[in-house]
Amino acid sequence: MVSIVIKIDSTSLSSTEKIEQIAKRIIDEKKRGRNVIVVVPNMELLEDKNYQIVNLLSDKPSKRELHVIESTNAQIASSLLAIAIQKKGFKAISLTGWQAGIETIENNDSVLISNINGERIIDRLKKGEIVIVAGSQGVDHKNNILTLGDGGADTTAVAIGVALKAEHIEIFTAQDGIYTADPAVVKGARRLKQITYDEMLELAHLGSQTVHPRAVELAKIYEIPLVVRSSTEAQGTLIKGEVDMEKNLVVRGVAYEAEIIRLTVGYDSYENSSLANIFSTLANNDIDVDIIVQAVIDGVKPTVSFSIDKEDFAEAIKVLEKNKPELGFSFADFEVGLSKVSIVGAGMVSNPGVAARMFDRLRKENILVKMVSTSEIKVSVVVPQDDMVKAANALHDEFNLIEEIVK
Amino acid sequence: MVSIVIKIDSTSLSSTEKIEQIAKRIIDEKKRGRNVIVVVPNMELLEDKNYQIVNLLSDKPSKRELHVIESTNAQIASSLLAIAIQKKGFKAISLTGWQAGIETIENNDSVLISNINGERIIDRLKKGEIVIVAGSQGVDHKNNILTLGDGGADTTAVAIGVALKAEHIEIFTAQDGIYTADPAVVKGARRLKQITYDEMLELAHLGSQTVHPRAVELAKIYEIPLVVRSSTEAQGTLIKGEVDMEKNLVVRGVAYEAEIIRLTVGYDSYENSSLANIFSTLANNDIDVDIIVQAVIDGVKPTVSFSIDKEDFAEAIKVLEKNKPELGFSFADFEVGLSKVSIVGAGMVSNPGVAARMFDRLRKENILVKMVSTSEIKVSVVVPQDDMVKAANALHDEFNLIEEIVK
Repeated sequence: MVSIVIKIDSTSLSSTEKIEQIAKRIIDEKKRGRNVIVVVPNMELLEDKNYQIVNLLSDKPSKRELHVIESTNAQIASSLLAIAIQKKGFKAISLTGWQAGIETIENNDSVLISNINGERIIDRLKKGEIVIVAGSQGVDHKNNILTLGDGGADTTAVAIGVALKAEHIEIFTAQDGIYTADPAVVKGARRLKQITYDEMLELAHLGSQTVHPRAVELAKIYEIPLVVRSSTEAQGTLIKGEVDMEKNLVVRGVAYEAEIIRLTVGYDSYENSSLANIFSTLANNDIDVDIIVQAVIDGVKPTVSFSIDKEDFAEAIKVLEKNKPELGFSFADFEVGLSKVSIVGAGMVSNPGVAARMFDRLRKENILVKMVSTSEIKVSVVVPQDDMVKAANALHDEFNLIEEIVK
Repeated sequence: MVSIVIKIDSTSLSSTEKIEQIAKRIIDEKKRGRNVIVVVPNMELLEDKNYQIVNLLSDKPSKRELHVIESTNAQIASSLLAIAIQKKGFKAISLTGWQAGIETIENNDSVLISNINGERIIDRLKKGEIVIVAGSQGVDHKNNILTLGDGGADTTAVAIGVALKAEHIEIFTAQDGIYTADPAVVKGARRLKQITYDEMLELAHLGSQTVHPRAVELAKIYEIPLVVRSSTEAQGTLIKGEVDMEKNLVVRGVAYEAEIIRLTVGYDSYENSSLANIFSTLANNDIDVDIIVQAVIDGVKPTVSFSIDKEDFAEAIKVLEKNKPELGFSFADFEVGLSKVSIVGAGMVSNPGVAARMFDRLRKENILVKMVSTSEIKVSVVVPQDDMVKAANALHDEFNLIEEIVK
């Protein structure tokens, strides 16, 4: 019998009415004759007296105990959804991470799913029950409870889908799929019917919050299809290895990120400039560097520029000042009020003219490109914050993302 | 190494200050060089948004899911206490019921502990950790979470003590031990240094809320000593098989229960009177009957009187009316405004004059005895509600429970 895994969104748990609606939606899926496994995220309704008490008790509570407390949220959510489904006359059962056979390991600061023993879930499916799994949690080999952190519920859904050889995984979100750009900003942004894992990864890393990259990466490895849609609509976006339709569309989406800061560090001579040192020092201080541009021009002192998030700015300046002697740079400069706009599409690999077309269009729009970064399926530019929306709309238009829907 | 199990009271979890106090108290016990296992009850602080949502979702939620939700309370409480202990520089770890190896079974409507696999707890004790177990929960053989209901945390503490061959079990309560009567009502009521399991069982069933009878019964079977005390004082009451001291004290305590109702059912002839029928009918409708008195006097129509709790009154009348034809009685009558006062003491078995002395004293106090019930170690009388406090004080005085402390 065909199984599907549905990861519901936290909005679907934001009130009793919403819980009843999502229960009905899940029952509809069951009525189509499939085995249904549902993965629930944390409920904001339950956040959170617990942490208030924790903070009063300790300024440095142990991670192990925080995992134990954190895990109760999705545990309660899974039971509430099971109760709502049962109320409508259907069989349902909640399973915590450990009950569902989800094995996890701690790796440095993150928690990963190492294995899923799917027997318990399969047993329950065989009884005709809808299985509701508390997302983002499991146990290590010593039966300690661990929670997965950001993107944990998405990742749990994909991992269960892989373990149970599910037909596909549905990720319910507030939007009805993946868009060529943010519809709130770009006129004519439209929903993609299909997109590849790699394109989705680029979009996810570029700020699209619909599916967590961890989950997309896992789905890519096991080649299991993901469907992203809202819980209330039939349409959505299919994420898979190769996209059949729309192949001719070179650029698949436009993404952007606001509030970027460019830092520039200059050296007196080439001998002093050690890029490795500067970026390892920043990384050791948890400062994420995105785009890096090194200018080495004859007769000009060498400089390196890089972009960071606004939140990391103060810390980055502090780290640079502190380590100035070792890092050997002679000056540091910064520019605020920038943003990043990117175009993404698997077809770009075989279309070398795409970047040039992008720069050309931006020039026509009188938008100054401050930095550039490219990958096989992506081109990102840093432009003034004030031009961000204009740039996104122009690129969306340039690559025919609007017209495509009319065809 | 000697182990002790401490079951803390819910008052100790009623604020962060209280949690910090109880953490210190537990650490003191650890400092004495013992292995310490703590069993926590539910926290009232966390009660309870969850049930509000459940009630909105379903008027008849499944018991299985209610267990799942209920279990999160003590799970969180155990983590919070572990965090508070760690904050003070001591090693501690929380364990849920299933992590602690607590196996439970469902038996009709109640959940019982069937076995404890103590390995996990022992492993942790060997590491020098204080082990905090979420009370009143375990898992069945299919790993479903079950919660134990009333007295569950007390019972968990005793069961763990038995499994780990603990030296004794400490039950922390609001009071500093077991009293000869309720100090709020009886002048001169005093704390007993020791009491037998059977005496404690009678007192518990008669309304003393310090230790749950389930826990006392289990301790009695395995002959493991219980110490009842407040978390802030050294003194307490030792509950064990045979009491060494105070043996000469025939009556060990006075208990009472307010708001009793006496129902009387009369028959036209002996042929029609079937006691078994009437009490099985009441039992089938979940009405607890306490004292039963049957009057069969020559020349007088047979009657049977029994006492019930005020809450069951309306239901009892309804059940009797509905089943009147089958039960064959000719009239039913009732008396409200009654109470039950009892004296308890293991020494009563070998002191046949105790009941007579009790009735004599009540007669002197002009207290009318409406019903009488006796067991080997207990005599209960039903008296007017208005005389309850007077009767309790008189009996406390009669059996020298006040003077004993002066000796």
